[in-house]
Amino acid sequence: MTVAYDGTDFFGFQRQPWQRTVQGTLEETLSRITGENVTVTGAGRTDAGVHARGQVIHWETNSPIPLERWPVILDRALPRDLTVLDTEEVPLDFHARKDACWKQYCYTLDTHKIPDVFTRRFRTHLPVLLDIDRMKEAGSHLVGTHDFTSFSSAKSPVTDRVRTLYGCRITEPEDGVVAITVTGNGFLYNMVRIIAGTLVQVGKGELSPAAIPEILEAKDRGRAGKTLPPEGLVMVKVCYTPWKEETSEAGS
Amino acid sequence: MTVAYDGTDFFGFQRQPWQRTVQGTLEETLSRITGENVTVTGAGRTDAGVHARGQVIHWETNSPIPLERWPVILDRALPRDLTVLDTEEVPLDFHARKDACWKQYCYTLDTHKIPDVFTRRFRTHLPVLLDIDRMKEAGSHLVGTHDFTSFSSAKSPVTDRVRTLYGCRITEPEDGVVAITVTGNGFLYNMVRIIAGTLVQVGKGELSPAAIPEILEAKDRGRAGKTLPPEGLVMVKVCYTPWKEETSEAGS
Repeated sequence: MTVAYDGTDFFGFQRQPWQRTVQGTLEETLSRITGENVTVTGAGRTDAGVHARGQVIHWETNSPIPLERWPVILDRALPRDLTVLDTEEVPLDFHARKDACWKQYCYTLDTHKIPDVFTRRFRTHLPVLLDIDRMKEAGSHLVGTHDFTSFSSAKSPVTDRVRTLYGCRITEPEDGVVAITVTGNGFLYNMVRIIAGTLVQVGKGELSPAAIPEILEAKDRGRAGKTLPPEGLVMVKVCYTPWKEETSEAGS
Repeated sequence: MTVAYDGTDFFGFQRQPWQRTVQGTLEETLSRITGENVTVTGAGRTDAGVHARGQVIHWETNSPIPLERWPVILDRALPRDLTVLDTEEVPLDFHARKDACWKQYCYTLDTHKIPDVFTRRFRTHLPVLLDIDRMKEAGSHLVGTHDFTSFSSAKSPVTDRVRTLYGCRITEPEDGVVAITVTGNGFLYNMVRIIAGTLVQVGKGELSPAAIPEILEAKDRGRAGKTLPPEGLVMVKVCYTPWKEETSEAGS
């Protein structure tokens, strides 16, 4: 299933006792509808406050409900900030996280003095002047296969921190709004939010684009920029076919 | 002051005891900052759940705070769903409601099977196929000076129900999203939501565009369409200079 949510009022994706989570809400609703004891596995465990347009989940059921009826049934059963956009039948050994070939995230900043109240839940308000060309140059240094230790939370227990970034695109979807879209084969804990924080430092002139290769080389979380807050981050899509260079969405 | 708000969690504009309202929140915040007993007057009393991009309010103060500092001071002091975009000094006899020459409202519908979770707070979900050309034709019959009794809540105590609509524009800002923008010298209670409900009936093919003049003529609330829910309605702007025909925003 392809799932979209406004993460503002969820305590993240992963089920936790006594907390409102995306996984918990989906499991309760699907269990209620099917009468089965449903467990849901997501492609990525988004943090508290992070949103999704195209999170992917898998679960098993013997329900006789036809595939195409699920989105509308769930639109009625789920809370207003969580929707199921699409349903597909997959082999029993399909795994939403392990089988993913690449993912795309987008981090959006509202740089106006006063933030737009209609998009405020999905953008981080940062009233500063950003040099987009400097940010693009810095972003291009992140594309490729690197050890991203400097761009991951020091708390992460993962040991292999080599990942491939297929694209890092900086755009201005509206005047004063800056979007950082990253596409890669995997992302470490807080990686997109630290990349965004580092690119913002570059855009403000506090860091040179040429410093990015050195920061990667240092493998030291202390060298990169701040971890920006969750509200600007959206999990855009998860793909299960290998990355192709010509795919236009990655850009650079 | 020009004020924008996400009306979802407000019990409308007008102050009411024990309810979270826009007027009440502004008055409390301005009174706290100035140490004065502030009363706020708005250009229009939007209903519970209705939003604003350009509501205008006036209030009196002897505060020494410079005009241009108010938006940022208030961005910190106000809740996240209410912002002040602009501040202007006006003559003591200025009245936000009585001096308004024209207003613009926009009603937005999301016609997808599953609504977009990111814009859901500001659009009414109506999964039907709408014929835009029919809606445009119907809308054109509403433009002009008419008695809008058929398009106002029967509960309204107002006796003079003649208003002038300068424009009624139907657009598709995105595939599957339909926006109805109306501009006029004044609006009766529920008028925009009843116009939207009637145009939806036309778009669904339940009503002919040619029926609009007859509905206006009948001066009977029972003849027009349903009052659509508040979430799709936004007060776009309020203007204090007379309407000019060439103003492009009205369209038709």
